[in-house]
Amino acid sequence: MNYSEEALKMHMNKKGKIEVVSKVKVESKDDLSIAYTPGVAQPCIEINKNVEDVYKYTSKGNLVAVVSDGSAVLGLGNIGAEASIPVMEGKAILFKEFAGVDSFPICLKTQDVDEIVNAVKLIEPVFGGINLEDISAPRCFEIERRLKKELDIPVFHDDQHGTAIIVTAGILNSIRLLGDKKIEELEIVINGAGAAGIAICKMLLDMNVKNIVLCDKYGILEENSRDINWAQKEMLKYTNKNKESGTLADAVKGKDVFIGVSRPKMLTSEMIKTMAKDPIVFAMANPIPEIMPGEAKESGVFVLGTGRSDFPNQVNNVLAFPGVFKGALECRASEINEAMKVAAAKAIADFIPDEKLSREYILPNAFETGVADAVAEAVKRAAVDTKVNKIEV
Amino acid sequence: MNYSEEALKMHMNKKGKIEVVSKVKVESKDDLSIAYTPGVAQPCIEINKNVEDVYKYTSKGNLVAVVSDGSAVLGLGNIGAEASIPVMEGKAILFKEFAGVDSFPICLKTQDVDEIVNAVKLIEPVFGGINLEDISAPRCFEIERRLKKELDIPVFHDDQHGTAIIVTAGILNSIRLLGDKKIEELEIVINGAGAAGIAICKMLLDMNVKNIVLCDKYGILEENSRDINWAQKEMLKYTNKNKESGTLADAVKGKDVFIGVSRPKMLTSEMIKTMAKDPIVFAMANPIPEIMPGEAKESGVFVLGTGRSDFPNQVNNVLAFPGVFKGALECRASEINEAMKVAAAKAIADFIPDEKLSREYILPNAFETGVADAVAEAVKRAAVDTKVNKIEV
Repeated sequence: MNYSEEALKMHMNKKGKIEVVSKVKVESKDDLSIAYTPGVAQPCIEINKNVEDVYKYTSKGNLVAVVSDGSAVLGLGNIGAEASIPVMEGKAILFKEFAGVDSFPICLKTQDVDEIVNAVKLIEPVFGGINLEDISAPRCFEIERRLKKELDIPVFHDDQHGTAIIVTAGILNSIRLLGDKKIEELEIVINGAGAAGIAICKMLLDMNVKNIVLCDKYGILEENSRDINWAQKEMLKYTNKNKESGTLADAVKGKDVFIGVSRPKMLTSEMIKTMAKDPIVFAMANPIPEIMPGEAKESGVFVLGTGRSDFPNQVNNVLAFPGVFKGALECRASEINEAMKVAAAKAIADFIPDEKLSREYILPNAFETGVADAVAEAVKRAAVDTKVNKIEV
Repeated sequence: MNYSEEALKMHMNKKGKIEVVSKVKVESKDDLSIAYTPGVAQPCIEINKNVEDVYKYTSKGNLVAVVSDGSAVLGLGNIGAEASIPVMEGKAILFKEFAGVDSFPICLKTQDVDEIVNAVKLIEPVFGGINLEDISAPRCFEIERRLKKELDIPVFHDDQHGTAIIVTAGILNSIRLLGDKKIEELEIVINGAGAAGIAICKMLLDMNVKNIVLCDKYGILEENSRDINWAQKEMLKYTNKNKESGTLADAVKGKDVFIGVSRPKMLTSEMIKTMAKDPIVFAMANPIPEIMPGEAKESGVFVLGTGRSDFPNQVNNVLAFPGVFKGALECRASEINEAMKVAAAKAIADFIPDEKLSREYILPNAFETGVADAVAEAVKRAAVDTKVNKIEV
């Protein structure tokens, strides 16, 4: 199937993908008097008396804003607010279809950090959570940090943490299948030091992996690397413990795991042969991964994950974000913290039982029933454990 | 039925009134590849090439933002963003139920004019129209004026123009029923010089009524009236041609029409008896009108309209805004101009055929089938006539 052509046709025929519908019927004067004036005044009065009642009488508690400035959309780059809308509408329908969470695209006509932060704060009242999407690094880090600090609802940049959760789940299941390696022993190369690369790096550091070497297009990231930004510099404090330098080929020597969030065909057969035994590879460049499955297998890769649905082990964020938000919203978490993200990764990994786990099945498929609920339950437990839940569950 | 109690129960049980649903099915990998990656990239690319294509491939063309700052909600006053949400969700479902127009509540956590204008401009990309709601006067005039100037999509403050359209329709049908008065001959008193009062005044001036006297709580509005604001001062240029002064009772003497957007029981039987023959009264204070129907009838009122659904001739904005936006969106009008509003008023008036028109039936009921479509058609024709339509219809 030619997805581009089909997508164009479908988007045109349907004129977009979302619609906003009523949960209540409005067919009589009485219906109107309850859903609108005069009856509607009463919930307004209650919320005015106690602002927390906004969760009781409005859609806020199950409503997520999908916020983008269109600065880093898919593989398309900085295409601006309008051109990002099809992606954000897509995200909105995935929230609903996979977890029953309502969400709405907010595509902002600015790429100024202050303006983005202010706009999100101003529209916050109707939303129970903020999903940041396709915002370029390093701006995305500051936007997320400030919104997390200034808002009392969960803020989650999916390109960062969604991807990190799935990759972590994939690594957990890869070593579970291997049986003879612990996560604390892993030496890892991440190629690509943007939003996703840095978030994966942070999450794996939280999981206590032994060492991570971050690379960008100029090779191993160092203090004086070309075009290095503040977010990458900060990561140098916690990565590259052996002060390695050189190219990506230098970096991968002896490493257990390669994680690519970079460009097609960056990882060669020769490089793989220099890695440690049973290399684990997540090659997530789209649509052409850093190495193709055939070549990876021939080169002795133990597990290969990619971003593609037509290869095994797809790193698909839809496994994470719907359940993560569902869980966070159901217990009214004030944030989505590290413990909740780790819980989500473990829930995704554990979703595959021992007897089904294989080199070609280390991640659930997007459409397996129950993933979002399993993730939501785990996220809720972690929220309660870390005391960020505002209601009992 | 106790609407307050029923409303509280319903809002709590349903947890708000809106949900955001998908117009396309997402049940297989192919569905996902068309609605989301990789297929979704194609509409993004097309919009990036030609931003007008945002209307072709996204929901924008049928999507209205219901924007409020919660500063003047129903009869409740300044209750803030959160407490206004039930009303804005209500408005959103009326758009959908009455005209098939999708809309979404944007309740802004600021009451600063600049911040409101900026926020609306930033979120504009996904919306095809802006419905301002429950924003206090005179701030609402400036917000609307600036947004109309700075945005290329229709901006419409319903509290102003929706009400003005229905009142105008009511007056048109009242004189149609009377048969012996022309609109150009009418002398009118408007009691209440806020958003609705001033908008009604402007629209009736556009219809070339003979004279209007605006009153506020201190009586006839004059240059040096207490608490007079810039918007009211501006109206003095066009109203009160005979330099009247005094109380509301002084104002109504000899007038043909009384329009109340003020407070309960402001208009007495004695006042009505001083009006011209066959007085026309729109008493829209809620829930208790400026005069009750029984007293109005006994005092010789020819036609009485109120804001209440349990009395005849309800001035209900739902007769106007769904169709107004439907028409404006369908022809992609760049604005909702005076001609389009007048066309809407005439369409509402003409919806009632001669043989059914009566003193108790000068306005259609909210649930009569076809009102929104009739309004939409008239609005579209007026948009074409005034050349503000961007697509042929």
